[in-house]
Amino acid sequence: MKSIGLIQVYTGDGKGKTTAAVGLAIRALGHGFKVCYISFHKNPEKWGYSEHAVLKKNGADVFALAGKHSLCNKRVHAASVREDCLKGLGFIKEILKGKKYDLLIIDEINISLRGGYLKTDEVISLLQEKPPDLEVVLTGRGAPVKLIKFADLVSRIKKVKHPYDKSIKRRKGIEY
Amino acid sequence: MKSIGLIQVYTGDGKGKTTAAVGLAIRALGHGFKVCYISFHKNPEKWGYSEHAVLKKNGADVFALAGKHSLCNKRVHAASVREDCLKGLGFIKEILKGKKYDLLIIDEINISLRGGYLKTDEVISLLQEKPPDLEVVLTGRGAPVKLIKFADLVSRIKKVKHPYDKSIKRRKGIEY
Repeated sequence: MKSIGLIQVYTGDGKGKTTAAVGLAIRALGHGFKVCYISFHKNPEKWGYSEHAVLKKNGADVFALAGKHSLCNKRVHAASVREDCLKGLGFIKEILKGKKYDLLIIDEINISLRGGYLKTDEVISLLQEKPPDLEVVLTGRGAPVKLIKFADLVSRIKKVKHPYDKSIKRRKGIEY
Repeated sequence: MKSIGLIQVYTGDGKGKTTAAVGLAIRALGHGFKVCYISFHKNPEKWGYSEHAVLKKNGADVFALAGKHSLCNKRVHAASVREDCLKGLGFIKEILKGKKYDLLIIDEINISLRGGYLKTDEVISLLQEKPPDLEVVLTGRGAPVKLIKFADLVSRIKKVKHPYDKSIKRRKGIEY
């Protein structure tokens, strides 16, 4: 990144958080910046998030960490999700040390915080170790107040209307 | 689009409207859907929006229509902007007739409405002509209530914090 790197947060209950991060990744890639895209609590094997494939094809490094979530799968224990999330933070710590990227996206990390799998201070401590020119984007509903205070740019995406409310199911190419 | 096509609106004063639309385009392209990405009131020659280039590279058709805006350039008359916007609607009408696409994004069209260059009824009439399986995404702050009522999915992106407030200028790869 050729300018100061900030911390961005996209939160709220509306559609557009992950897609905003993906769009930002595309914009950065278009300028030749190096992009790392990490998702938490997503299972690409099940849903085959097509945006991950396109990001990879365009030069981003893409990783899915801590794929499980105890609310989505009752057989998954919260302790094992926390363990996976902590491993994820360890992985990100190495990414930060490597200083290889201009933009780092951590999709759905707010879900780890909301679910209590990670503590806000753990995430903030990690972010404090980021290289000064690295832009970091965090997404997911329920961003804690402390994280919002810490961040430089925060957008809250409010659902005014969503077709789920009309019982229209997740649509390929739109919701995943 | 292999499912029902809806109307989505991304509005509000926060960062993430255009990038959410770009991310959605990438997701759709990843599933092999045909994407048309149109921007209003943007001047790619001046700003070289890198996301347009990446969208093109990945198979989307990209058009910048009605590039001028009388608020951004005092020498531009509102009447000529309205004329350009109406031409833009004519162009989109042909796109709808062509039935070539699965996803049509009209970036910043809400700005045409907010500026009074287009009437909400003109845009809604056009949207009523869309093929049933075409998903349409409209972005820009200040979406009128009538458009919000007409749409199926609406996200309002609220600025909680933006670095512009700290006098940090537009950054390459992040804001454009």
